[in-house]
Amino acid sequence: MYRLYSYFRSSAAYRVRIALELKGIPYEIVPVNLLQGEQKRETHKARHPAGLVPVLEVTTADGHTQRFTQSLAIIEYLDEIHPTPPLLPADPFARAQVRALAQLVACEIHPVNNLRVLNYLTGTLGVDEANKLAWYRHWIAEGLAALEAMVTAAENPGGPFAWGDSPTLADCCIVPQLFNARRFECDLTPYPRLTAIEAACQKLPAFQKAAPATQPDAR
Amino acid sequence: MYRLYSYFRSSAAYRVRIALELKGIPYEIVPVNLLQGEQKRETHKARHPAGLVPVLEVTTADGHTQRFTQSLAIIEYLDEIHPTPPLLPADPFARAQVRALAQLVACEIHPVNNLRVLNYLTGTLGVDEANKLAWYRHWIAEGLAALEAMVTAAENPGGPFAWGDSPTLADCCIVPQLFNARRFECDLTPYPRLTAIEAACQKLPAFQKAAPATQPDAR
Repeated sequence: MYRLYSYFRSSAAYRVRIALELKGIPYEIVPVNLLQGEQKRETHKARHPAGLVPVLEVTTADGHTQRFTQSLAIIEYLDEIHPTPPLLPADPFARAQVRALAQLVACEIHPVNNLRVLNYLTGTLGVDEANKLAWYRHWIAEGLAALEAMVTAAENPGGPFAWGDSPTLADCCIVPQLFNARRFECDLTPYPRLTAIEAACQKLPAFQKAAPATQPDAR
Repeated sequence: MYRLYSYFRSSAAYRVRIALELKGIPYEIVPVNLLQGEQKRETHKARHPAGLVPVLEVTTADGHTQRFTQSLAIIEYLDEIHPTPPLLPADPFARAQVRALAQLVACEIHPVNNLRVLNYLTGTLGVDEANKLAWYRHWIAEGLAALEAMVTAAENPGGPFAWGDSPTLADCCIVPQLFNARRFECDLTPYPRLTAIEAACQKLPAFQKAAPATQPDAR
């Protein structure tokens, strides 16, 4: 039994929901309301000391529960124990390229723009709304430009996706990142390859079911 | 032939140097001076559009060159093609825990404190030195507290390292992060397990050879 502690608009939780849906793994969503600070309460920190979502709980047939944190680590775990359909290519070079695309999102773009960082800017540092938005758009523009160049350079004769002819870990990260960029009304016209990848993904039921708007805690 | 584009104090390059040394893979260091902005020049952006280090270039026997970016993706690649000694455990649950520890550093702690972010704070936002330092220490304290809790909770009967009785991907990330924290004179006394891991790693020649102070571009 799989239980995902999630927040509808959390980019990292969204990545894991896409992976679970692509794999066809049934799971239960337990919402953690980030705006109300539920992730910082003891009940959630007992699940994950960092006070972050997502957390995946897996209960085995004998009643033992295992907990998993960090979206990319969770998706790699799911890919190892449910190998079909694969979310990483078989070839080591290709695997490294897909992981690099995912990590460009997860290690460079997303971390500087998540809720706790934006709250520190406006709270502790007293940054006004215009400068907060400029910060957000600066890192989006810098990061997506690099990502656009990388997916364009990637040898991908096969398909509309970031790598090969089916969705991978890279697409699980790109789609939530573009969702965030749209929320903050970033101009996406400089990234035609990324928006084409997004459009191809959005046609698939797995991406539709994982979307923020279709979550039980969506408001 | 392996060539690593590196900067002696880059935390991400440091992680890859540790992995190369642990694997015993011979490699050439090509310094990219981040303080002089060499990573943003066209020569380096041709290697990696994001203008970041590290970049690993691998030239095969037939003269073909492959490029790899993102430190964790590079280390996973090295682990796949040079499996001994392993930097990830064999068991899927354990692999996921080690990856989660590494990603807590690489996706939560390091990105908000790297050079380009600190430059934006002091440059564009006009944050003064004291507030920059407070920012740095805030994310270190929050991140290392979570990491300390995670390594303490991890089932690790075997050894002094983050997981099991030999260094893993997690240790490759923890040691550079503590190096950074020391540079900014963060108080590390609340993290006895992390500093014990660091001490155990620093006894190994691989960690000593990968250290910033022993790099050709160290100043």
